[in-house]
Amino acid sequence: MTARDLAYSLAGTTMSGRFVCGDSPLPRPALLLVHGAHGLDRFMLDTAVRLADLGFAVLAVDLWGGRALPEGPQQIEARIGACLADRAAWMARLEAARQALAAQPEADATRIGMLGYCFGGSSALEFIRTGGAVRCVASFHAGLDLVANDWSAASAGRVLLCTGSDDPMAQSTDLQRLTAAMSAAAVPWEADIYGGARHAFTEPDAPGRPPFARYDAYADQRSWAAMADFFTHCLA
Amino acid sequence: MTARDLAYSLAGTTMSGRFVCGDSPLPRPALLLVHGAHGLDRFMLDTAVRLADLGFAVLAVDLWGGRALPEGPQQIEARIGACLADRAAWMARLEAARQALAAQPEADATRIGMLGYCFGGSSALEFIRTGGAVRCVASFHAGLDLVANDWSAASAGRVLLCTGSDDPMAQSTDLQRLTAAMSAAAVPWEADIYGGARHAFTEPDAPGRPPFARYDAYADQRSWAAMADFFTHCLA
Repeated sequence: MTARDLAYSLAGTTMSGRFVCGDSPLPRPALLLVHGAHGLDRFMLDTAVRLADLGFAVLAVDLWGGRALPEGPQQIEARIGACLADRAAWMARLEAARQALAAQPEADATRIGMLGYCFGGSSALEFIRTGGAVRCVASFHAGLDLVANDWSAASAGRVLLCTGSDDPMAQSTDLQRLTAAMSAAAVPWEADIYGGARHAFTEPDAPGRPPFARYDAYADQRSWAAMADFFTHCLA
Repeated sequence: MTARDLAYSLAGTTMSGRFVCGDSPLPRPALLLVHGAHGLDRFMLDTAVRLADLGFAVLAVDLWGGRALPEGPQQIEARIGACLADRAAWMARLEAARQALAAQPEADATRIGMLGYCFGGSSALEFIRTGGAVRCVASFHAGLDLVANDWSAASAGRVLLCTGSDDPMAQSTDLQRLTAAMSAAAVPWEADIYGGARHAFTEPDAPGRPPFARYDAYADQRSWAAMADFFTHCLA
């Protein structure tokens, strides 16, 4: 297994991603892994290794730059607010990551997908919606309320949404709005909904966790299997 | 591979199911496969073999008896209408099949699941809703409009719905009604929705097919993978 930090920069900010890949055969289908609002933390680094074990060349993105790990509602809201205030800059950071991944010799630049967790799921959906050059996107408990409606510039890729029925950031009204917008733009989509699952169902419970988030072993395992099959299907 | 016809009877009707199972190890987790309104046809017999290849002991149910293969709207509607008019008799035929499967030496009677296609999906959902002794149920493009709302007698099992967003027999209003009813009864559920897929998306197109039904390769392959992982998870 190859693993190395991968620095890339944009507009004066240096991002420190993590690249992970098995040793052979090369080049491999490639994935951009986008973290949630809490940054490129241990959970995401471990997830990158699990994805590499599935056969992908993986870049765990450092969306915030400098491996920043925001804590608490105030820091989180500031980060998300800055993205929503300048969606072009938000997407430009993902595009910089995409180019960095495409430049790695282990990655097949013609077969790149993207997945994201929580705010990273919103980010991945926004990336493909706005024409980002990926072939497919999977989201885990994405904040669907942050995804805009105009998919007319979307990439010709597939979308997989893995979401909990009891996630206040992915309410059924937003799910219906989003899937209708994708259908109208002829973007193929799939929505896997886990009954009773709350926000951030893939992430371990920890002290201080808000009540709208909870680990759900079933939804965690099922969404992982759905994602693995999805990327194998779309990037084969 | 073992394959044999399996006759069982109820109230003067003899049903001729088909039992299929790999040779070892035994006993295996077991599945009841319920056909759609067209009966236990070639497509269902082939599906039983594919399920056996996954490691299950499978009984392809003969819901209509005598391997009847109804044709045309009039015969189909008569069969479905009879079930809806006497739901207890409908469920009794499934229970007779369950007992026949449980009696096979290759089947682990403590680990039985059920899956169904089209009307067979409605049948499987009704079976678990009314307390049928299965541990889990998966449906492919089930007629959700035929499934009733009171899940208070439901078995303590899991449900997986695989459905197309453009299936007139599984409209979003019915999906929401059904999932809300399952949530209210604490029945764990998952709904995998394939954007743009119509009714009967797993079944090959053929002349005379109505416009609301169409084969969809993506939904077919994804739902099969979701089902295989689901039963492996629930019956392990």
